[in-house]
Amino acid sequence: MEPIDRVRVRAREGDSDIEREDVLAVEEPLEIRVRGREGPATSFVTTMRTPGNDEELAAGLLFAEGVLGEPRDLVSIDRPSDPRIDPDLVANVLIATLGGDAAARAAGLQRGTVMGSACGVCGKTSIENVIPSDRPPLASSLRVAPELLYRLPALLRERQSVFARTGGLHAAGLFTAQGELLEVREDIGRHNATDKIVGAAFLARRLPLADRILLVSGRAGFEIVQKAFAAGIPFIASVSAPSSLAAALAESAGVTLVGFLRERRFNVYSSRERVLRDTPPELQDRVNGA
Amino acid sequence: MEPIDRVRVRAREGDSDIEREDVLAVEEPLEIRVRGREGPATSFVTTMRTPGNDEELAAGLLFAEGVLGEPRDLVSIDRPSDPRIDPDLVANVLIATLGGDAAARAAGLQRGTVMGSACGVCGKTSIENVIPSDRPPLASSLRVAPELLYRLPALLRERQSVFARTGGLHAAGLFTAQGELLEVREDIGRHNATDKIVGAAFLARRLPLADRILLVSGRAGFEIVQKAFAAGIPFIASVSAPSSLAAALAESAGVTLVGFLRERRFNVYSSRERVLRDTPPELQDRVNGA
Repeated sequence: MEPIDRVRVRAREGDSDIEREDVLAVEEPLEIRVRGREGPATSFVTTMRTPGNDEELAAGLLFAEGVLGEPRDLVSIDRPSDPRIDPDLVANVLIATLGGDAAARAAGLQRGTVMGSACGVCGKTSIENVIPSDRPPLASSLRVAPELLYRLPALLRERQSVFARTGGLHAAGLFTAQGELLEVREDIGRHNATDKIVGAAFLARRLPLADRILLVSGRAGFEIVQKAFAAGIPFIASVSAPSSLAAALAESAGVTLVGFLRERRFNVYSSRERVLRDTPPELQDRVNGA
Repeated sequence: MEPIDRVRVRAREGDSDIEREDVLAVEEPLEIRVRGREGPATSFVTTMRTPGNDEELAAGLLFAEGVLGEPRDLVSIDRPSDPRIDPDLVANVLIATLGGDAAARAAGLQRGTVMGSACGVCGKTSIENVIPSDRPPLASSLRVAPELLYRLPALLRERQSVFARTGGLHAAGLFTAQGELLEVREDIGRHNATDKIVGAAFLARRLPLADRILLVSGRAGFEIVQKAFAAGIPFIASVSAPSSLAAALAESAGVTLVGFLRERRFNVYSSRERVLRDTPPELQDRVNGA
């Protein structure tokens, strides 16, 4: 499936109508089914997403929900082979075969589940469980200079697809402490791009993402912070606004949260010590010489 | 609870740091519990939302999920009185007491549930059920002139809070066919503002919202169309992009979908007959005279 779709529209401009082609971001449901090494697969979650990197999305979502913790928890992710499934729908279904205790964790979540527009609170049956208290805050000696932060949004935009640059898709980028862009993912769902980044790292056995910087093209809500914290990412930058709960969780989770990163400005909401006040000389040179 | 929160931030501008106050949209979980006329309440859904109009949000969400259909399905919506609940959390919990067959429908959804970032597909255990085929498309003789559409975004902005106007919150507005703005709701969640609009109509026994126009400040995804269709709203306008599935569902549901409504331009994606090519004389007069 393509991430974009072309449709015919009636375009109005002022007093005139024209018929023309328009490009839309594809939105399709992805149903993630889970099973143990034996037994049938059962539906775990259905999420609306832009097709592409589906296995990463599934792994990232199962990781964020706490089903996956370490590599052995995931045996495989496959398209269904059940001939009863409509072939047109096979592209929208993935089956995760779980190992270790993961199948038991998934079953527990399936039994006591909640539903909602907020993935981050899915599977948590009461509000008391939304903010985890059983994990220590992230410790990281990562330090980031303002001049480096100023450069990140342009680096992300350069690597986004043309369509995403127009605002049709959300993007997330993973950077090194030196500002090197390692991964870019795009999706119509606000959280899916981040799930794909984390899922790719899970599949490549690169978790935790210590000393990395996550840049998101949209707002930084509670769930973005929750997902970054779960993946061990100590630094989140958003070009837009954080929410009150995102700032509160970031503070208690030891995650640095930067918002409104644009036009040589930003705000720091938590774990401020990771944002340097001065730009190191070598970075200053690069900025002046670039 | 207030819809906005004031926090201290370190604000960077170019080479200098200042300490100042910043205003954030409040994001808090709302747990919706359901019960029949007798028996204990069980958790149905937890959604992240901006506090305010919580009962409307709960009613709108239960309506969108198909739990509520008609007024008798909802006996009451109350804060919990259970003394074991932390008083700080009472503000984040609502209990819906269901009548008629609604409790049975809720129980069915709770048993066979899915979880996800997409409320519209919550409670639908397989992709085959995402697009309902058992309801006829909306029939409506509503006709809307382009000049009337051009005026709607400014009318919505005028009635939004100052904070929402800055982009911190999503807004949804319900208009008459004559362009009168009846209701405005705001929320940090992309779909919650629409759920609040529909929930308010449910509670006031004003469903279906025939011949109304729904304007949303963000993108028009699949779920916005699904919610409007369920509420009988035949016309959706968005200032931003629709998704491919939103356009497809709108076409099959008989809902007119207008996107990119800004600066005297828009695109019509479905049920085009409801958008007039000419502006009626009386509206032309109002435009020229306004």
